[in-house]
Amino acid sequence: MDKKYLERHISNSFDTEIKTIISQILEMGNIVEQQIQDSVTAIVSTNKALAEKVIEVENDVDMREVRLDEICTEVLACRQPAAFDLRMILSATRIIRDLEHIGDEAQKVAKMALRLKKKGAAPGGYNEIEHMGALVQGMLHSALHAFTQLDVTQALAVAKSDKKVDREFKSAMRTIVTHMIDDPKSIKRAMNILSALRSLERMGNHNRNIAEHIIYLVKGLDVRHSSIKEMESKLGN
Amino acid sequence: MDKKYLERHISNSFDTEIKTIISQILEMGNIVEQQIQDSVTAIVSTNKALAEKVIEVENDVDMREVRLDEICTEVLACRQPAAFDLRMILSATRIIRDLEHIGDEAQKVAKMALRLKKKGAAPGGYNEIEHMGALVQGMLHSALHAFTQLDVTQALAVAKSDKKVDREFKSAMRTIVTHMIDDPKSIKRAMNILSALRSLERMGNHNRNIAEHIIYLVKGLDVRHSSIKEMESKLGN
Repeated sequence: MDKKYLERHISNSFDTEIKTIISQILEMGNIVEQQIQDSVTAIVSTNKALAEKVIEVENDVDMREVRLDEICTEVLACRQPAAFDLRMILSATRIIRDLEHIGDEAQKVAKMALRLKKKGAAPGGYNEIEHMGALVQGMLHSALHAFTQLDVTQALAVAKSDKKVDREFKSAMRTIVTHMIDDPKSIKRAMNILSALRSLERMGNHNRNIAEHIIYLVKGLDVRHSSIKEMESKLGN
Repeated sequence: MDKKYLERHISNSFDTEIKTIISQILEMGNIVEQQIQDSVTAIVSTNKALAEKVIEVENDVDMREVRLDEICTEVLACRQPAAFDLRMILSATRIIRDLEHIGDEAQKVAKMALRLKKKGAAPGGYNEIEHMGALVQGMLHSALHAFTQLDVTQALAVAKSDKKVDREFKSAMRTIVTHMIDDPKSIKRAMNILSALRSLERMGNHNRNIAEHIIYLVKGLDVRHSSIKEMESKLGN
């Protein structure tokens, strides 16, 4: 987190709450990042234990969302923040929500891993899952870093990467549909792979949302529903 | 909206803002409800003009989300509400977000309608789309009514209906996958139908979220991640 911002808050009455919220978001973010990695490994290496771990951790992520939201609401009610501080709390509640959604999608990938394990033999599409997984995990890592540094340029780069995830998804989908047409026996298993890919694509959307929340936090600009070009022009990049 | 709540606000300094927010949410909700209906009609009757209308309206819905969020942030900053009033503003921002997501899914259904129109001949699954569409539209209608009446019982009923939507989705998916296996030539078109069904299923989730926001608004209870049974027990039903 930007030093000046923290220093300003050291003498400020709600310093402790703000610092707690920020560090809790990072903690939650790190857990979710691990969930992405574990869910991808679980499906690609058909690792049942790892898939079960992801599903179990999801409860913790849910509880963190609820608890963090409670803290934010309390800060709003008791401290009545304005300007940057208000944006910090509002962005926090939004980032938490997107993190929880990413965890939720990781859980879906883990469930697909369990389902595929039951049905034997790899149906292909694992390279695509691994590739998209690495992309999406990297996006979240950068987004969390951009949040701690209040770095709009890095946030914008995260938003941009989502285009890449979308392209990968479309290309993977075409490959798998072609495979399904060639080998109709594989349809059911291919549908599970497609579900996992779709979850990864959705994680990309949530990462982009987090990037947008950071831009709102730092610049006070609502860039939702803006194209990357519009974002850049709004930010004077 | 509960008469007492409005009456209390008539003499209150931020009466106008609260009333604006509520009526704007209802307006946005009605537009989105129409989007659900139009997107389903567009796909089932392959009505290109209607599909294009849904896609066009989505811009308006996006803008409404941004504007309403701005109003809510302003109220938070200037009025510093507490207790029920704070929950009203927080629930408002969450409901708006879910409404926008429903509009987004309706737009996806409309895009599938355009894609299917291009490729000719119905691939089946239209009954399921019509059925799920009616369910999801009814849920949103009830949710908006529950919001205006601050009716927790009706909100709970909306949350319950989501189970039905999930069941319908799973059954439709099984039917369509079987159809794909029997007739691999239909796979590409069937995938579009599946996408539309998945969008409707997701609309159901967002309706459930709206119901949860209403319960939070009225009771101050966070029932996210709770099963229906847990919700009922928390609400003393």
